[in-house]
Amino acid sequence: MSLRKGTLLSIRDDIRVMDVTIRDGGLCNNFAFTDEFVKQLYETNVKSGVDYMEFGYKASKKMFNEKEHGKWKFCNEEDIRAIVGENNTPMKIAVMADVGRCDYLTDFLPKSESVIDMVRVACYVHQMSAAVEMIEHFHSLGYETTCNIMAVSQVSADQILQALDILSTSSVDVIYLVDSFGSLYHENACELAQKYVEVAAQHGKIAGFHAHNNQNLAFANTVETLSYGVSYLDASMMGMGRGAGNCAMELLLGFLKNPKYSVYNTLDFIEKYMLPLKEAGIKWGFDIPYMLTGLFNRHPRSAIEFTSEDRKDYSKFYKELVEND
Amino acid sequence: MSLRKGTLLSIRDDIRVMDVTIRDGGLCNNFAFTDEFVKQLYETNVKSGVDYMEFGYKASKKMFNEKEHGKWKFCNEEDIRAIVGENNTPMKIAVMADVGRCDYLTDFLPKSESVIDMVRVACYVHQMSAAVEMIEHFHSLGYETTCNIMAVSQVSADQILQALDILSTSSVDVIYLVDSFGSLYHENACELAQKYVEVAAQHGKIAGFHAHNNQNLAFANTVETLSYGVSYLDASMMGMGRGAGNCAMELLLGFLKNPKYSVYNTLDFIEKYMLPLKEAGIKWGFDIPYMLTGLFNRHPRSAIEFTSEDRKDYSKFYKELVEND
Repeated sequence: MSLRKGTLLSIRDDIRVMDVTIRDGGLCNNFAFTDEFVKQLYETNVKSGVDYMEFGYKASKKMFNEKEHGKWKFCNEEDIRAIVGENNTPMKIAVMADVGRCDYLTDFLPKSESVIDMVRVACYVHQMSAAVEMIEHFHSLGYETTCNIMAVSQVSADQILQALDILSTSSVDVIYLVDSFGSLYHENACELAQKYVEVAAQHGKIAGFHAHNNQNLAFANTVETLSYGVSYLDASMMGMGRGAGNCAMELLLGFLKNPKYSVYNTLDFIEKYMLPLKEAGIKWGFDIPYMLTGLFNRHPRSAIEFTSEDRKDYSKFYKELVEND
Repeated sequence: MSLRKGTLLSIRDDIRVMDVTIRDGGLCNNFAFTDEFVKQLYETNVKSGVDYMEFGYKASKKMFNEKEHGKWKFCNEEDIRAIVGENNTPMKIAVMADVGRCDYLTDFLPKSESVIDMVRVACYVHQMSAAVEMIEHFHSLGYETTCNIMAVSQVSADQILQALDILSTSSVDVIYLVDSFGSLYHENACELAQKYVEVAAQHGKIAGFHAHNNQNLAFANTVETLSYGVSYLDASMMGMGRGAGNCAMELLLGFLKNPKYSVYNTLDFIEKYMLPLKEAGIKWGFDIPYMLTGLFNRHPRSAIEFTSEDRKDYSKFYKELVEND
């Protein structure tokens, strides 16, 4: 196993923190955030030293009805500008584009006309070729790009290497390890992270990590993969994100030693804006059903359904998972 | 860094799981568990393959009024027997004795007359000599013993080595690394764990780990220290324990690969017995104030007070911690 990069006391200049509260958290409330919430989150992120803020998805309006979802599923240029103006801050703006769920040829302006800085392309391993086509398009428009390869815990090591190989010859800037099901333990996550870091470094690219908290390891795995050379770190306020949620921003900013990052402002935001979401009944975060889908290396959809029905019969849910194994 | 012991798929025959729900969880409800709760927990632990169940403290009745606390603060022999009878199971029974808070010379029967198998001696580094005196006494009575050295995150590496040195010549069976404030990251925890494991192995002893979840790392650090050779692992149902609580039993049993351990029965217990505690307002588990005392490497008492007052002004609490730094 290669050596860790830096120590618990050192600063790593390559680290970039990405706030995914609106994008991954939007999956919990159908992107129904108020403008005030998004504006305050934006200002909090800027004050906290966050490097990127992901505003949401650029979903296809042909496939999804704009009236049925909050606006951050679509991230219209004017909606982002209503929050950030010209974004005269050091923080960059990201959006996510899913392979097969966006109209990438028509829905993106040239970077010179857009306040968006980065497009993150999310795909499954079998969609790598489509992802690369999108990445090249976004690159030609002038955007920074990432590729977030999802659900790798259900894919063979060979297929992951093939995917990394395909990406290595593309124009992509950042290659993301994504623990979609929250099923990775440290040893798995770090072994994968080292592969990603190695391939990325060989081709002048950077590696990132996106965690889910099914087994309460989102922060732990983020810190561990970072120690093995991952640079881009996804986090969200109070870990808000689909199912068990993500790495909590407050934990990550508390951990990082670079004084540009500050946890203090996130606390103020959390008490004023996140607690009311919890009180309004928006659900996310570590809970037994998500733990079980993580343990079984499954998509969290059955746990999300279980939770949304306010079921508490955990042992029955366990049997349902075993029977469907 | 030495190699990990075993892999994510292997069984480690040296592993022992210790349920601390009543003892550490008792700090959240003043040990006011019903007999039915304790009986069902006992049966669940037996069915789940748990190796030891800690019933509570053997606190001094001269120092603490029996009428002001639940009975598991005192663990009278007859109270334990009312739950376990002769304990004709493979699971062993443990109690904790704090240095300076118990009458160890008068309150313990010889092992031959007691259903208790193990006494865990908890102490601070400056109490090592007193701890060893107690350990030798319990050893002469016939008990298995552990020494749980608390608050080592506030102690110099030299002092820790001195403490381990003192213990190495004692009769103690298990030496516990205790992350009292939940302030250890993996790298700290594993570095310390390796020291404990090394000293223990040199003297025919075993190492254990007791986590607190202030930074949501209790399970993560338990799995990590175990991979570096720690054998005795503390956990509690839903992580119930003081402040942010401990490593969750359901996470740990889900992780362990030995088929003697089963997570299924814990789920049934959790839905029937742990959720009602939560609903009754008993407080424990990861939350922002505990995260902050963990981050500041402080005793959780200010966070417990904050939480008990139902305060939510996290940023003010942060400032209070900074001012008292």
